[in-house]
Amino acid sequence: MEFTINSPIDMHLHLREGAMLECVTPLTAQHFSAAIIMPNLVPPVDNLERLLQYRKEIEAAQGDDVFDPLMMLFFRQYSEAELKAAREHIFGIKLYPAGATTNSEAGVKALDEVESTFALMEQMGIPLMIHGETHGFVMDREKEFLPVYAKLAEKFPKLKITMEHITTRDAVELLDRYENLYATVTLHHLVITLNDVAGGLLNPHLFCKPIAKRPEDREALLQAALAAHPKLMFGSDSAPHPISKKECCGCAAGLFTAPVCLPTLVELFEQHDVLDNLQAFVSGNAQRIHNFTAPSKLVKLEKIGLQMPARYGDVVPYRAGESLPWAVTQIS
Amino acid sequence: MEFTINSPIDMHLHLREGAMLECVTPLTAQHFSAAIIMPNLVPPVDNLERLLQYRKEIEAAQGDDVFDPLMMLFFRQYSEAELKAAREHIFGIKLYPAGATTNSEAGVKALDEVESTFALMEQMGIPLMIHGETHGFVMDREKEFLPVYAKLAEKFPKLKITMEHITTRDAVELLDRYENLYATVTLHHLVITLNDVAGGLLNPHLFCKPIAKRPEDREALLQAALAAHPKLMFGSDSAPHPISKKECCGCAAGLFTAPVCLPTLVELFEQHDVLDNLQAFVSGNAQRIHNFTAPSKLVKLEKIGLQMPARYGDVVPYRAGESLPWAVTQIS
Repeated sequence: MEFTINSPIDMHLHLREGAMLECVTPLTAQHFSAAIIMPNLVPPVDNLERLLQYRKEIEAAQGDDVFDPLMMLFFRQYSEAELKAAREHIFGIKLYPAGATTNSEAGVKALDEVESTFALMEQMGIPLMIHGETHGFVMDREKEFLPVYAKLAEKFPKLKITMEHITTRDAVELLDRYENLYATVTLHHLVITLNDVAGGLLNPHLFCKPIAKRPEDREALLQAALAAHPKLMFGSDSAPHPISKKECCGCAAGLFTAPVCLPTLVELFEQHDVLDNLQAFVSGNAQRIHNFTAPSKLVKLEKIGLQMPARYGDVVPYRAGESLPWAVTQIS
Repeated sequence: MEFTINSPIDMHLHLREGAMLECVTPLTAQHFSAAIIMPNLVPPVDNLERLLQYRKEIEAAQGDDVFDPLMMLFFRQYSEAELKAAREHIFGIKLYPAGATTNSEAGVKALDEVESTFALMEQMGIPLMIHGETHGFVMDREKEFLPVYAKLAEKFPKLKITMEHITTRDAVELLDRYENLYATVTLHHLVITLNDVAGGLLNPHLFCKPIAKRPEDREALLQAALAAHPKLMFGSDSAPHPISKKECCGCAAGLFTAPVCLPTLVELFEQHDVLDNLQAFVSGNAQRIHNFTAPSKLVKLEKIGLQMPARYGDVVPYRAGESLPWAVTQIS
């Protein structure tokens, strides 16, 4: 049994820098045709010079694979001149509420003070991606942020706004209420709930932000993904941390899912007998929504079994050590 | 500033066995006059011979401190002869749904199959303590179990039933609906929510079962404790694990709070200006509800500051490394 995906795209990816980037970049560049590269480094990628330098580092690490890193600026107040200079080099701008997740300390403290940048982005057709969480109770943070999405979508109707890595039924429902509101969803939020993180023994390798939510949330996300909801895009949020930052006191948030995304997505869509919808979820929706063409890349998977390694370097991947049914067998 | 507690009692304590027992027993025996000793060892304490042996081990470890270990049997179907033989040696019987927490695999799978033992306990005046969680979604497990408490309380109206380590507002509210229903609450569930476990970096040292819940749950528990609700008793659920079982993949559930319980309770009750209610919460309620007298022990605390160690042996305590305002300064 086999299944081929045309130009899979990861619309939310963390590659880090230095040795970690060198370790993880090839694993995405091999399977994906393009990926949106998150800019929450220390210091953040918030100017063109740093962005171009970062892109070079990624290109050096990706080797000969056909792979297009779609670069993002870290949101701050930008001048029109800055945005004009950056426009052709960036895919969009990623906004973090200050302190909401890993390396987001430089993020935005008050959204109503930065509306001039939203207006410029709207005029220039630069998409806005948002990590939408408040600083409230961990299970409520996304839901509490939804009115902010709604307000921005209303106030800037031509601005394409993506709710990144949505985790709740409420966010899925909001998708249909504003024409200019889109979303990405990770692989792991289609599969796990808080039970998998903290229902038995505590599993730091499944700890992420936003935290995995309730069964009814997971079900709503899964149904939207399986149906290839036209405003929903796959974005892995693959976020590697060394094992020393996971199995410790003060475990960092993030799952490293890059090498297992496509095999698991095929498994999931096959289980639900909707394999035909996967192409749109993992590629077509993103290209239509953002009006771009990803490099051509045919990724064939076959049901021949795949033994997942325990680690890649010092990173423990999602599904470490598991035997998966599907494997990527040919890329052309 | 000083405050003296008369015969503090810990109504829910894990002492383990062997080297761990030798490490942690003195820390409770020093501060408390008596404590209910949980029987979830491997194999469980489910016969009189093992219980008496276990008591001897505790007495050997407690040294010269005035301290009464109140022994518990692990619930199973017991015959009348077994219960008669055990009656004078036990404080009560602890029921675990199979698999609900640490070392509970031998617990009960179907409650309606063990009612003959409940009936015997009711006749003989043996209290029943329950770890009340279903196997559902981790945030709902206690709430889903409440109808079981209600059913048992109705069916066995003379059986004293304690909801152990309650964590939800719903459980607090249930307390007032059945005369024969009581509860213990831990120190940490008066202080932390899921945010402290998983809202920032993941903190395995605050991971416990039942898991810490929502802010409104914590608030309901705290208000009931501060008011010394007459059916609520302090039970620390202090549950030591070696650091290697906490900072790892598959972290065990439990906080080691024994050495910090009294200083923190005094701090908490003082902050809310209800120090006068602490005696009932930490001693009086338990003796009245269960009609027993704990050994006389005056524990004086003074506001002179206490630097908490990072570890006791290989166990990281709650509030490790913190500077606390109150310290136990005299015991007589």
